[in-house]
Amino acid sequence: MSTKINRPFFVFNPKSYLYGEELLAWAKRADELALKYPECSILVTVPYADIAAVKNATEQIIVTAQHMDGIKPGRGIGHVLPESIYHAGARAVFLNHAERPLTVSDLSQALKRAKELGIQTIVCADSIAEAQAVAIMGADVILCEPTELIGTGQTSDSAYIQQTNQAIKEIDETILVMQAAGISTAEDVYRTIELGADGTGCTSGITNAESPLEMLTEMVEALVKAYKERG
Amino acid sequence: MSTKINRPFFVFNPKSYLYGEELLAWAKRADELALKYPECSILVTVPYADIAAVKNATEQIIVTAQHMDGIKPGRGIGHVLPESIYHAGARAVFLNHAERPLTVSDLSQALKRAKELGIQTIVCADSIAEAQAVAIMGADVILCEPTELIGTGQTSDSAYIQQTNQAIKEIDETILVMQAAGISTAEDVYRTIELGADGTGCTSGITNAESPLEMLTEMVEALVKAYKERG
Amino acid sequence: MSTKINRPFFVFNPKSYLYGEELLAWAKRADELALKYPECSILVTVPYADIAAVKNATEQIIVTAQHMDGIKPGRGIGHVLPESIYHAGARAVFLNHAERPLTVSDLSQALKRAKELGIQTIVCADSIAEAQAVAIMGADVILCEPTELIGTGQTSDSAYIQQTNQAIKEIDETILVMQAAGISTAEDVYRTIELGADGTGCTSGITNAESPLEMLTEMVEALVKAYKERG
Amino acid sequence: MSTKINRPFFVFNPKSYLYGEELLAWAKRADELALKYPECSILVTVPYADIAAVKNATEQIIVTAQHMDGIKPGRGIGHVLPESIYHAGARAVFLNHAERPLTVSDLSQALKRAKELGIQTIVCADSIAEAQAVAIMGADVILCEPTELIGTGQTSDSAYIQQTNQAIKEIDETILVMQAAGISTAEDVYRTIELGADGTGCTSGITNAESPLEMLTEMVEALVKAYKERG
Repeated sequence: MSTKINRPFFVFNPKSYLYGEELLAWAKRADELALKYPECSILVTVPYADIAAVKNATEQIIVTAQHMDGIKPGRGIGHVLPESIYHAGARAVFLNHAERPLTVSDLSQALKRAKELGIQTIVCADSIAEAQAVAIMGADVILCEPTELIGTGQTSDSAYIQQTNQAIKEIDETILVMQAAGISTAEDVYRTIELGADGTGCTSGITNAESPLEMLTEMVEALVKAYKERG
Repeated sequence: MSTKINRPFFVFNPKSYLYGEELLAWAKRADELALKYPECSILVTVPYADIAAVKNATEQIIVTAQHMDGIKPGRGIGHVLPESIYHAGARAVFLNHAERPLTVSDLSQALKRAKELGIQTIVCADSIAEAQAVAIMGADVILCEPTELIGTGQTSDSAYIQQTNQAIKEIDETILVMQAAGISTAEDVYRTIELGADGTGCTSGITNAESPLEMLTEMVEALVKAYKERG
Repeated sequence: MSTKINRPFFVFNPKSYLYGEELLAWAKRADELALKYPECSILVTVPYADIAAVKNATEQIIVTAQHMDGIKPGRGIGHVLPESIYHAGARAVFLNHAERPLTVSDLSQALKRAKELGIQTIVCADSIAEAQAVAIMGADVILCEPTELIGTGQTSDSAYIQQTNQAIKEIDETILVMQAAGISTAEDVYRTIELGADGTGCTSGITNAESPLEMLTEMVEALVKAYKERG
Repeated sequence: MSTKINRPFFVFNPKSYLYGEELLAWAKRADELALKYPECSILVTVPYADIAAVKNATEQIIVTAQHMDGIKPGRGIGHVLPESIYHAGARAVFLNHAERPLTVSDLSQALKRAKELGIQTIVCADSIAEAQAVAIMGADVILCEPTELIGTGQTSDSAYIQQTNQAIKEIDETILVMQAAGISTAEDVYRTIELGADGTGCTSGITNAESPLEMLTEMVEALVKAYKERG
């Protein structure tokens, strides 16, 4: 089974809010949605030590690590070994998140190792120049999240989304563009895809919702609908 | 079952050399030794994503994480959540290894979180002043490994071991002292325990041995013997 | 001339708010106060590239670097060479500030180099355990600033100040204790010294005052007065 | 006086080997060469606290900082404030050296601040992908130094130099390309410029030479000659 990320895609990113049994329940629900809507990819990010359990309990979602280091099996201690997360079941990884920024050189190494193993990379960038730099280094997905908007409930505006899309596709049109700033409702998801993003995602908009599982469902449905209508 | 680390103890630390099935085979072998010699504690360090599998396949060893961050469930992404590794089965953690050094403040936070969850801490220090500082901050085990000796095949000399022991026990006599610089034979293990260390450990001395599993066995036997004879 | 820091002492720490001519004017004013009240030490922290100009324009203040690295003359590029800041005129240095935290090992190296060169160290700690750890590693002055109070205008309470003092002096009674959380008026200075701190300091409380130079003067006078009355 | 870096250029980078009077003597000698060969730019990197003294004692060289942070005047402590090094006399800065790597985001911020102040940037990259990424982010000069060659006395081969040149000029042909791996003789300088580099530089090849000042002179002469002959 290929693990290439489809267009459109949705990332449920519970960060470090969830782990263990509770995370597992969420992942199973996301898996049901992924089986129901196989035309889109659903990624769930999980803490490293939860990767194996989530992988074993699901079929269709792309289990995603929060980070990995560009190391090879060897002396490293305390770093995240790509082979270890791959073996446990991760098929995608976030890199260079604002909470876990990477040096230019470490990002480059991590991207290289991800390609060797077949792990899809979602690389964060918080300006258009950074997004282009990251595109040149070979990201599979670029998350364009202006740092100042994270967690504020404000979405990126239409001009920003279109500029970013264009700047990235200019470098490499096969790179997927993710826009996820301030997504907190199904309408936000719809609008973001409508504006041209290849994928989106959400953290607190889901976990803090009155009916979280319903919110997750509605968001995935909005994603599928918007993408179909965009044509 | 208490997970307090006994005196003497042995740490098999394959760093990032092993993961997946091969690591599992080693962990099972270590577990047989741990069941055979219940008077000593045997710790096996594993990559984060391997914690659950190793825990599920073993009974007696203390599954040990290579690092963790002093965070609480919440926004962090890319960090190592203590609750996640605990839930997966880790009951001990290395902190401040030369390959993953921590700021004073981050170490202090990680020690606090470890105590809250019941995770034993093995904290690295590469000078006597640092060992005392770390003792005051509340480590359970201190690994006194002069950075310049790591991986050279040279063991710490007797004066260094005794000075370190004394300096640490002066601060808190319940702290266990681990000495592991340059351990590559069962004789090195014997001598280190004889000189007063509470525990020791090994990486390449085992994995590079002609008969690795035999070497692991001999080292654990030397540990038990030296500790008994020391009285 | 000895550069040992006297009891009491006052640190004017304009962080990165000031540089060049404006910083020079402030430093000269602080120098006049230092000459008028030679019984106390007045330290002024300055950006690295301003050290020489400030030293050349002043007589009595202790020119203080914002950080240095524990390196020796050699290959390092981009780090702060102790010999370079000493030659330019720095006789004290902040280490491990919350905005520039150091690993346990790097702090230990920096303290060692500072002692070799005769640079006084002001080491930050944000809990009592960290303050004791830092005391054992050999700081000359410890700044006990609970991270959560920095810049809030709230001072540390009396119990915190006394506990910290006691915890540090227990390890080494020659270490000076600095308390500077939330100092924004001359009364705050008076109260902090009265409660037993050896020194204090201020940033925005001075630069944001209606009459900044007057505020600096009043704070130094309050320091001298409180220390005399404390007896 | 414009501080734009000319083609060809030579960087004397004594890292942290030199400071104070000894550095000053070297800088003066480099300045004589810069006055004699005004058609090339000569840059001298110096520790932060030496910038002002070197600037005051020289006329023509471009005084270069070893690093700076992309911060604005404000709260930062322990970071390198761009305004402070500019005021002291720095007109160029190294960024992202292997010994002081920057995150993608911090590099982007530092480049932005450098442009605002008129500080030329020499950005290090250790692969062609990284060089292109850095070109897109807006470096003025890119130093293509394969990390594994630093300090080995081996120069980059002709194919590497030409590939790098092409990859960078493809993104922006105004960016200058510096090649400096393993430069230890005037012949190395000649060959590197002949192969198409816009500039080069040296550390230990000069300071360890039998007659260091003569070596510096010969290297600058080789640079000028090669560039003229290249046409």
